[in-house]
Amino acid sequence: MSDVLKFGIVGTGRIGRMHVSNINKLIDGAEIIAAADLYIDAAADELKANGVKHLYKDYKELLANPDVEAVIVASSTDTHAEISIAAAQAGKNVFCEKPIDKDLDKIKEVLNVVKETGVKFQTGFNRRFDHNFRRVRDLVTDGTLGDPHIVRVTSRDPAPPPIEYVKVSGGIFFDMMIHDFDMVRYLSGSEVVEVSAIGAVLVDEEIGAAGDVDTAIVTLKFANGAIGVIDNSRQAVYGYDQRVEVFGSKGMAKAENDKPTTVEVNTVDPPTTDKIPYFFLDRYTNAFIDQFKEFIISINEDKPTMVTAEDGYCAVQIAYAATESCRSGKPVKVSLD
Amino acid sequence: MSDVLKFGIVGTGRIGRMHVSNINKLIDGAEIIAAADLYIDAAADELKANGVKHLYKDYKELLANPDVEAVIVASSTDTHAEISIAAAQAGKNVFCEKPIDKDLDKIKEVLNVVKETGVKFQTGFNRRFDHNFRRVRDLVTDGTLGDPHIVRVTSRDPAPPPIEYVKVSGGIFFDMMIHDFDMVRYLSGSEVVEVSAIGAVLVDEEIGAAGDVDTAIVTLKFANGAIGVIDNSRQAVYGYDQRVEVFGSKGMAKAENDKPTTVEVNTVDPPTTDKIPYFFLDRYTNAFIDQFKEFIISINEDKPTMVTAEDGYCAVQIAYAATESCRSGKPVKVSLD
Amino acid sequence: MSDVLKFGIVGTGRIGRMHVSNINKLIDGAEIIAAADLYIDAAADELKANGVKHLYKDYKELLANPDVEAVIVASSTDTHAEISIAAAQAGKNVFCEKPIDKDLDKIKEVLNVVKETGVKFQTGFNRRFDHNFRRVRDLVTDGTLGDPHIVRVTSRDPAPPPIEYVKVSGGIFFDMMIHDFDMVRYLSGSEVVEVSAIGAVLVDEEIGAAGDVDTAIVTLKFANGAIGVIDNSRQAVYGYDQRVEVFGSKGMAKAENDKPTTVEVNTVDPPTTDKIPYFFLDRYTNAFIDQFKEFIISINEDKPTMVTAEDGYCAVQIAYAATESCRSGKPVKVSLD
Amino acid sequence: MSDVLKFGIVGTGRIGRMHVSNINKLIDGAEIIAAADLYIDAAADELKANGVKHLYKDYKELLANPDVEAVIVASSTDTHAEISIAAAQAGKNVFCEKPIDKDLDKIKEVLNVVKETGVKFQTGFNRRFDHNFRRVRDLVTDGTLGDPHIVRVTSRDPAPPPIEYVKVSGGIFFDMMIHDFDMVRYLSGSEVVEVSAIGAVLVDEEIGAAGDVDTAIVTLKFANGAIGVIDNSRQAVYGYDQRVEVFGSKGMAKAENDKPTTVEVNTVDPPTTDKIPYFFLDRYTNAFIDQFKEFIISINEDKPTMVTAEDGYCAVQIAYAATESCRSGKPVKVSLD
Repeated sequence: MSDVLKFGIVGTGRIGRMHVSNINKLIDGAEIIAAADLYIDAAADELKANGVKHLYKDYKELLANPDVEAVIVASSTDTHAEISIAAAQAGKNVFCEKPIDKDLDKIKEVLNVVKETGVKFQTGFNRRFDHNFRRVRDLVTDGTLGDPHIVRVTSRDPAPPPIEYVKVSGGIFFDMMIHDFDMVRYLSGSEVVEVSAIGAVLVDEEIGAAGDVDTAIVTLKFANGAIGVIDNSRQAVYGYDQRVEVFGSKGMAKAENDKPTTVEVNTVDPPTTDKIPYFFLDRYTNAFIDQFKEFIISINEDKPTMVTAEDGYCAVQIAYAATESCRSGKPVKVSLD
Repeated sequence: MSDVLKFGIVGTGRIGRMHVSNINKLIDGAEIIAAADLYIDAAADELKANGVKHLYKDYKELLANPDVEAVIVASSTDTHAEISIAAAQAGKNVFCEKPIDKDLDKIKEVLNVVKETGVKFQTGFNRRFDHNFRRVRDLVTDGTLGDPHIVRVTSRDPAPPPIEYVKVSGGIFFDMMIHDFDMVRYLSGSEVVEVSAIGAVLVDEEIGAAGDVDTAIVTLKFANGAIGVIDNSRQAVYGYDQRVEVFGSKGMAKAENDKPTTVEVNTVDPPTTDKIPYFFLDRYTNAFIDQFKEFIISINEDKPTMVTAEDGYCAVQIAYAATESCRSGKPVKVSLD
Repeated sequence: MSDVLKFGIVGTGRIGRMHVSNINKLIDGAEIIAAADLYIDAAADELKANGVKHLYKDYKELLANPDVEAVIVASSTDTHAEISIAAAQAGKNVFCEKPIDKDLDKIKEVLNVVKETGVKFQTGFNRRFDHNFRRVRDLVTDGTLGDPHIVRVTSRDPAPPPIEYVKVSGGIFFDMMIHDFDMVRYLSGSEVVEVSAIGAVLVDEEIGAAGDVDTAIVTLKFANGAIGVIDNSRQAVYGYDQRVEVFGSKGMAKAENDKPTTVEVNTVDPPTTDKIPYFFLDRYTNAFIDQFKEFIISINEDKPTMVTAEDGYCAVQIAYAATESCRSGKPVKVSLD
Repeated sequence: MSDVLKFGIVGTGRIGRMHVSNINKLIDGAEIIAAADLYIDAAADELKANGVKHLYKDYKELLANPDVEAVIVASSTDTHAEISIAAAQAGKNVFCEKPIDKDLDKIKEVLNVVKETGVKFQTGFNRRFDHNFRRVRDLVTDGTLGDPHIVRVTSRDPAPPPIEYVKVSGGIFFDMMIHDFDMVRYLSGSEVVEVSAIGAVLVDEEIGAAGDVDTAIVTLKFANGAIGVIDNSRQAVYGYDQRVEVFGSKGMAKAENDKPTTVEVNTVDPPTTDKIPYFFLDRYTNAFIDQFKEFIISINEDKPTMVTAEDGYCAVQIAYAATESCRSGKPVKVSLD
C-alpha cells in the first residue's frame, strides 16, 4: 500500500464532485486519481483542476486501473449494488453512498461479496461523523449515560424535494428518515426489533396524492430493551433541524442545532440569535469530510469501518417496516435474518 | 358576590395545605375560610395560623356553610367525584384535583351535574399555567407557529414512586402521563383521535412485576390532522425533566427546563450550569398559584375556566387508550362520545 | 424575643409599602405591626389590609412602641441617619435603605451608635441577595474560582430617571453605580483601594447640562491585589441589564440576565427568546424578600448581618472617589480610615 | 493579472507554514509559489508537498521573481518593516504579520512607501475576520445597534508564554492586548483618543520581575464619544476566552465563545457542556483563512484592504499609551498625527 491511498470515484454529480474537492484538497494521505461517469465530459475541467488524472465514461475501465485502491460509488442509486460488487470483486475497497439499494436481496448480494473478498466497505451515512452526534454516541459508549432507555431523533428538512423525486424515491421513510434509522442504531448501540409509524400530509397535498406522507413519527423497540422515537417533517420553515437525544440510566445527553455564530442581538425587540444552517451541505460540511478520514484509517490500519454494509442493509429493512406500519396502522417486527 | 372570594377546601394533606398557604398568603381577592378532612385535627394548627376559620371533619358541613362560594376538592381520588357533585349541587363552584375519577361514567356524572347546576368547574391540571408551556400555547393560539404539525412532550420524574403506589395508581399512563395527555390537547388546540403506545421496564423490575412499565412513548393523532409524541420515564437521575415543543407550518417553539440561576462555571473541568429542579413542587411553584388566580377570574368575570371538567374526562379516556395500546401493541381510537 | 419578630417601618412610599406586603404576606416569623409617615393617611387603607395595626405620623411614636423590635428605615435619604440613630438608641434593630447618608461623617455617626448600642444593622443593598449574584459569590467563598483576579459588573438601566432626580441625586455614581460598588466588594471579598472613572454624555444632553454623565466605566484596585471594572448606562433600550463575572486563578463564573421563560421561537425570521425584565422590581423581586429573611436570621441567631453599616459607608466613599476621578481624569485612592 | 494570484512568503516558521497550507489547499484563486527563509531547508519538504515551487534563503531573490504578485511577511518582527518596504518597492502587494514594527517611525516609513507605491497592504489582525466578531461589527455598521456607547473586549490566554518571550515582547500591551486595541477600533468604527490602564501581577511573579503585568484592564475614550474597556489575563485555566460586546443607543450585541459541539450532558452532577477551544489556532482557524480571502478580493477588485497599514500603526501607538498609563497611573492621550 502506498503512502497516499489512491481512490477512484464513480459518479461525478454534485455529491461526487464534492467528495473530489474534499479529498483532494482537505484530506492528507488520500487522493482521487480517477473518475468515471457516463457524462464525464461535463465535469472534466473541474475534475482536472482538482487533480483527478484519469477520466472514464465506463466505470469498468476505472476498476481496471491497478493504481486505484478504493472506489467511491456516488452514481445513481439503482447502480450502487452492481458497481459495489464489481469493485469488490476487482479487489478494491468500497465506499458506497446510501442506500446501497432498495432491494434487500441485492444488498445481501453485496454483503456476501464483501465478506468473500474481504475488502473494506463503508456505507455513506455521513451523519455518524457529525461532531455533535458523535459526541452523544461517545457518551453512550463510554458509559457516561448508563444503559440507553430512550433514543430520540428530530430531523426536519427546510423544504420538500420536487414532487417528481418523491414519486420515485420510495417515500419519506426511504429518502429522508433512512438517515435517522441509521442514527438510532448508532446511538443506541443496538438493533431495532419493532417499528410503529404514523404519518400525515400537512405540507403539500401533492405529496399525499403521490402516496406518501410529509410529516411522520416512528417509534422503535431495540434488542437491548430501549425504546426510541424519530420525527420528520418535509418542511421546517426555520431551517434544517437536526437534533438527537439519548436518555439512559445514568443521565441524558442532547445535541442542539449548530449556529453560524454565537452572537446574541438585544434591541427593543426580543433578543435574536443566528438562524440554523439551511440544509445538509452547510450542516454536515465536516461530516462529509470526516467519513473519509475514518474510511482511510480503516483501510490503512485494517480495522472495521464505522458504517458497514450490514448497517446499510438494516436501515433499508427498517424503512420497509416503517412504510408498512404507516400504511397498516400496526407495529411491524424487524428481524435481521 | 363578596369582594373577596371565599373558598372551602376538602382534604388537607400535603397538596391541600399547599393550596391553603398559597391562596391565603399570595392571592389577593380570595381566602380559604373553611377546611374539611376526616383527620382535620392533624392540620388544625397550621390551618388556623394560615387564617382558616372553620374546620370540619365532615365535608358536608363545609358545604352547608353559606359563606363558602367555591370548593377545592383535594381529597383522595376515589372521593373526588362524590364531593364534586355534592359541592356543585350545593351551588358551590368547584376546583377538583386530577383525576376527577378513574371511572369514565362517574366523570360523566360530574359533567352532567356541572352542566345542570351551571357552577364553574376547573380540573387541577396545573401545568397549563406553567410560564413556559403557556407561552408556547400562546404562540399556537396567536398564529405565530401556523397550523400545528408535530406536538412533543417530554416528562420524566426524578425517581419512581413507592411500589405500593404503582400497584393502585392505574399505572404510568394514569398517574404520570395523564398530565401530558392534557398538555398535548392544550398545546395542539385539538382533540386526540388515536393513540399508540410502547413501553418498557428498564428502571425497576418490581414495576414490571406489578403489571406496569416505567419507560413509555406514546404517539397521538389529533382531529386537526397534527401528530404528537410523549415520552415518559419514572427515573431521570438528573432531575425533573419537563419540556415541550410545537412544530407548525410557520415555525417551531420549544420550552427548555428552568434552572435556579443563570450562572455558568468555567474551570479546568467542563463548564457547568445549575441542575434542573428536582421535582414538581420546585418546578411548578407558580403554576400551582396561577391556576387559582385564573379560576378566581373565571368565577368573578363569569368566563369558562381554563381547564374544564371535559378536559378531565378526555385525559382519563386517553390514559385508558394508551394502557390498552401498550398491552395489545395496536393503535387505539379515542372518541369523545 | 417573641416567636414572631415585630417590625416597624418608617416611610410608606412605594418601596416601603412593598416591604410591608412582602414581609406580612411572604415571610414567616416576622410581621410589620407599625408604620410611620408624615403622609400616613394616604397609605392607611393598604397598610391595614396588610395587617399593620399601629399607624403614626411621627416616627418617634413608633420608636416608643415597646412591641417593635426592629425598624425599617425607608424614608427619604436625608432622614436615614437621624432615624437610624434614634432607632438604635431606642434599642431597636435597624434595616436602613441605601444610602445611609451622602455625608460620610453622618454615616460614621451611625456606625458609632450601632457599635455602642449593639443593635443589628443592615443596609439595603438588596442585590447581594439576588440568586445569580449570590451563587457567584459562593463560588468565590468556597474556593471554586481560586483567588479573584478580575471582577466585572455590568449594570444598565432601561431609561434615565427624571432630570429633576438627576440634579439632586448626587449623580450616576451615587444613585446608580453605588449598588455596583457594593457588588464588587461583595464579589471580590476585598476592599477597594483605588478608583479610576471615565464618563460620557451619550443618552441625554440635559444630563450633561446637570453636571452628570449618563455612561460610565470605572476600574478598581482591591486590597487583595485583584482588579475590577464596572460599566453603567442610563439607557439600555433592551431592558434592565444586570450581569456579573468573577475571573480567578482556578476559574471563572458569570451570571447572565434572567428571562421570564425558557421558550425559543424559530420561524423564517431569526430565532428569538424572551426579553429580559424591564426594571428592578421585576428582576430583584426575590432579592427584596430574601434580604429580610437574612436580617431576621441575623437577629434571631445573633449573627452579623450580610450587609453592615460599614458596607454602607464604603459604597458612598467609593462613589465620592469615582465622581472625583471622572471629573479630574486621575485615579483616586480610597481608604477606610 | 493572472486568474490565480501568485504569492510569495517570507518566513516559514509555524505561522508561515500554516499560511502556506491554508492558501494552497483551501483557497481558490491564489497560490503560494515561492518561499524564503534563512532556514528554508528545514521546511523544504513540507513546502514542496504543499506545492511551493521556488525556495530561497534570501528574501530578495523571492522579491526578484517576477511571477510573485503579493508577498506575505511572516518573518521575525524586527524584519517586518524592512521586508515590507522592499516588497512594496518591488511592486508587490504586501500582507504583513502584526506588529509591523515596535518603532512608530519605522511603521510610518512603511506607511509612506505603501502610499507612494500604491500597492495593497494588509496587516495580520486576523481576529477582524472571526465569524463572531465580524457579525458584531456588521451590526454596528448596518445601524442595528445605533451609535456605539460602550465597547467591551475580554481576551484571556490559557497560559502565559515563556518568560524569555515576555522579556523581549514589549509586555502584555504589545504582545497580547495589541489585538484588542485593533478590535475596539474595528468594533467602534472610531479612533482611540485616550487610554487608562491598570495592571497586576497575579499569575506569575517572574512576569512582574520582568517588569510586566499579567492581568490588566484598559479603559478607552473614542473620537465619536464612545467609551470602551478591555480586560486581559495571561492565564485563564478554562481555555482561550475571547468575547466582545458592543452596547449602543439602539441595542447591544455580544459574542460568546465558540464550543466544539452543542452537546449538553445531564447526570447526577451539574450539567456540563464542552470546554472552549484551548488556544488561537483552534479558535481562529477560519479567521486565518478568511483574512487572505479578503486580501485577494482587495487586490483583484482594487479595493481597500480590511486592515490597513494605518491600522497597524494605531494599535502600536495605543500599546505605548497603555504601557505608559499602567506605569504612571495616569490617563494618556493618543493622537494619530
